[in-house]
Amino acid sequence: MTGKILIVDDLAINRIILTAKLGSACYETLTAETGAQAIAMARSRRPDLILLDMMLEDTDGVAVCRSLRADPVTAHIPVLIITASTEQAQRNAALAAGANEFLSKPVDETTLLARIRNLLRAAETEAEWRRQETWCSGHGLAEPAAGFVAAQTRVALLGATPQMARFWRKQVAPLCPQMRFESIGTAEALSYAEGAAPDVFMIVAESPVALRLLLDLQARRATRHSAYCVILPPEAGDQAAMALDLGAHDLLHLPLDAEETALRLGMQITRKRRADALRRTVERGLNLAALDPLTGLLNRRGAEAKLLHLALQARQNGEGFAVLLLDLDRFKAINDTHGHGVGDEVLRQVAARMRSVLSPQDVIVRYGGEEFLIALAGVLLERARAQAQVLCDVIEQTPIATAGGEICVTVSVGVAPGQCGADGEDMRQALARTVDQADRALLASKSHGRNRVTVFEAASLPR
Amino acid sequence: MTGKILIVDDLAINRIILTAKLGSACYETLTAETGAQAIAMARSRRPDLILLDMMLEDTDGVAVCRSLRADPVTAHIPVLIITASTEQAQRNAALAAGANEFLSKPVDETTLLARIRNLLRAAETEAEWRRQETWCSGHGLAEPAAGFVAAQTRVALLGATPQMARFWRKQVAPLCPQMRFESIGTAEALSYAEGAAPDVFMIVAESPVALRLLLDLQARRATRHSAYCVILPPEAGDQAAMALDLGAHDLLHLPLDAEETALRLGMQITRKRRADALRRTVERGLNLAALDPLTGLLNRRGAEAKLLHLALQARQNGEGFAVLLLDLDRFKAINDTHGHGVGDEVLRQVAARMRSVLSPQDVIVRYGGEEFLIALAGVLLERARAQAQVLCDVIEQTPIATAGGEICVTVSVGVAPGQCGADGEDMRQALARTVDQADRALLASKSHGRNRVTVFEAASLPR
Repeated sequence: MTGKILIVDDLAINRIILTAKLGSACYETLTAETGAQAIAMARSRRPDLILLDMMLEDTDGVAVCRSLRADPVTAHIPVLIITASTEQAQRNAALAAGANEFLSKPVDETTLLARIRNLLRAAETEAEWRRQETWCSGHGLAEPAAGFVAAQTRVALLGATPQMARFWRKQVAPLCPQMRFESIGTAEALSYAEGAAPDVFMIVAESPVALRLLLDLQARRATRHSAYCVILPPEAGDQAAMALDLGAHDLLHLPLDAEETALRLGMQITRKRRADALRRTVERGLNLAALDPLTGLLNRRGAEAKLLHLALQARQNGEGFAVLLLDLDRFKAINDTHGHGVGDEVLRQVAARMRSVLSPQDVIVRYGGEEFLIALAGVLLERARAQAQVLCDVIEQTPIATAGGEICVTVSVGVAPGQCGADGEDMRQALARTVDQADRALLASKSHGRNRVTVFEAASLPR
Repeated sequence: MTGKILIVDDLAINRIILTAKLGSACYETLTAETGAQAIAMARSRRPDLILLDMMLEDTDGVAVCRSLRADPVTAHIPVLIITASTEQAQRNAALAAGANEFLSKPVDETTLLARIRNLLRAAETEAEWRRQETWCSGHGLAEPAAGFVAAQTRVALLGATPQMARFWRKQVAPLCPQMRFESIGTAEALSYAEGAAPDVFMIVAESPVALRLLLDLQARRATRHSAYCVILPPEAGDQAAMALDLGAHDLLHLPLDAEETALRLGMQITRKRRADALRRTVERGLNLAALDPLTGLLNRRGAEAKLLHLALQARQNGEGFAVLLLDLDRFKAINDTHGHGVGDEVLRQVAARMRSVLSPQDVIVRYGGEEFLIALAGVLLERARAQAQVLCDVIEQTPIATAGGEICVTVSVGVAPGQCGADGEDMRQALARTVDQADRALLASKSHGRNRVTVFEAASLPR
């Protein structure tokens, strides 16, 4: 899986030089002479990155870039423009058209290779996201990445001292008047609370220490998912390469151009929002796999982890817990008389009533067709019995309104004291025994006339 | 969210020096004098990292480390042992007890800070995994990380030239006789196919170029998830710090000790296996969220992404596709007569029969209670009609064997030509229209006597 790079240049000598340079860095290369060729080749050969000359016979780099971005097949391929021009307007036009970087000749080889590495690494990370998104999107799972809204964007300007940070904020903030800028010192940057970090850090690389700070921030939980732009002096080839290799997402060179600064910040914020949305989507997707679609309660798949967690807490804190099994009485008759849809509605409303009287710490599971498992955190057996009676009452008291009319429902409950496997016993086994005991208590409730609570007691119940 | 570091040392002067050093690097510090204090504090204050002296009044660092690892609350906190000792036996004992690193005094400050950063970064990544695992584990989702089996472990020795790589393989392979070692050159390392990369790369840092290679490998898809150990000369403080900052997972210094090499490789392989397992678990978890638990088919949530993918392919390749809606005839009667369980069994077997006559490229969805949606890839309407008839036949031909006896089932089908939104129309809208047309064709099948196929034709069907 060699990195495959498409070189687009109208001059044969340039294509030959770049092919040799990249070949000796172990990249596979393809070449194209014209814009039309480049676009066709990008579609058919799917390179991992494109090195694009600005001046082509049939068109220019900006137009090629725009076409690549407009086609879903090529939209995600990083594009690095190399050109003889040093004009700021061209630079900005290229970035606005979706180019990831714009390097003016002569290009320092170390910087070029570092930039390629950096872009390939970012593209690989994004490809992983996209693979997950293919699954998530449209499943009702994917959270759309919040678009780039400048006014909601927080950028922190980071200098060696608070004074320097303020100085730099005054330079940069007017360039992007809609974003919110903060100036902060090193100590402050390293002390953000989780969830409170800015979207982007702009680090002024006045010294090599600044690059270490980049690493420090990426090592802390609160700031590891922020975007990082490093501001460098005009000619800082080695430092630029090092910043990229150490994980900077983008670079800006002094003196700063307003439009370029806004474009690059915008690009990084968009990237970061996408990443944030995906992390949330994956978490939500995992949660959905654990939920019963009808009632929104945990399903059996989702229950075990929660129960283990509760048992572990109980063991660590020396607290009790209890497990209830609850079964709707004569539910089959409801389904047979009123049909499937009404039965479903009854289950949904029973679930809602249970939720309304239990605490958020308790675990509620749809355990079977009309059977529910409830684990009460931090309670002893007598509290659990009382709570079980509350559940019986809240379900019996008011008939359930359905499309098939009002239906009276009762439930039978079995209660067992939670066991968390002291003395080295496996926690799963202890839990299975607890559920089994609740089940036997439930059977006793059923055989003693239903609509009642039975507490498991070792001596009193048959095996 | 400042990084919180627990300093454990029996000498006050050492605690003071380390507190000052780490404070000026903006870490929050805690201190403990004895092993017992350290263990209690690790439990109650949950530091992000522990700096542990080897010689304590009440015990030694190895024993403390072992206790920390045995307690689930503290098992994941990185431990860095700092000691006056340079004895290899102590070093190995510490690593075997679960210490992440063992540094002998005098400790170079740059190296220490780089190591702390590196360990904190790894711990944060692991904490993210653990958060996801809390959800996955026990949901039937989590895939247990394959334990560390030396014989299945592939380690690649990477030198500047194939000759150097072979030379180093001869040095290292006898140290870990059970692992499989390969010697490779740079070009080979950069050309691994996806899935074919070794578990660990050991990179001999004969030159600064070797560290760039580390970055190159981490930028390529095939090798980005491998573990990286860098082999350094005896006194290489700056290079060590740089290797860690550039993403090396661990370091080994020349001359290599057999036991230490095996311990460090083992640690990295275990870490890597955990990460691999989690990536698979997350993918499986996401898949489960898209599946109907009864039939194992896609659920409605899972359908849209698949349909969009199919429509996109159709648009790109200029191929046709077709959408079928299929409904079981008089299914309610089955539920009412034989009960819920038998009804479920019928649905499961109908799903299995459909799957048996469709191709793996086709999309099959449980769309509602007894309604299925099928999208046939790459077919024109006449093929789709024939395929729909095959579905009718395979379900009607043989009665379905259930616990309630053999049950005869028939289905009605509506077929519509797939539309993928040419001329800039939104693809989702085009798909929704296709499904709507299939639904109208299905209604026609129902009203014309059931157990039949109707193809949507714009002119012939009422709106």
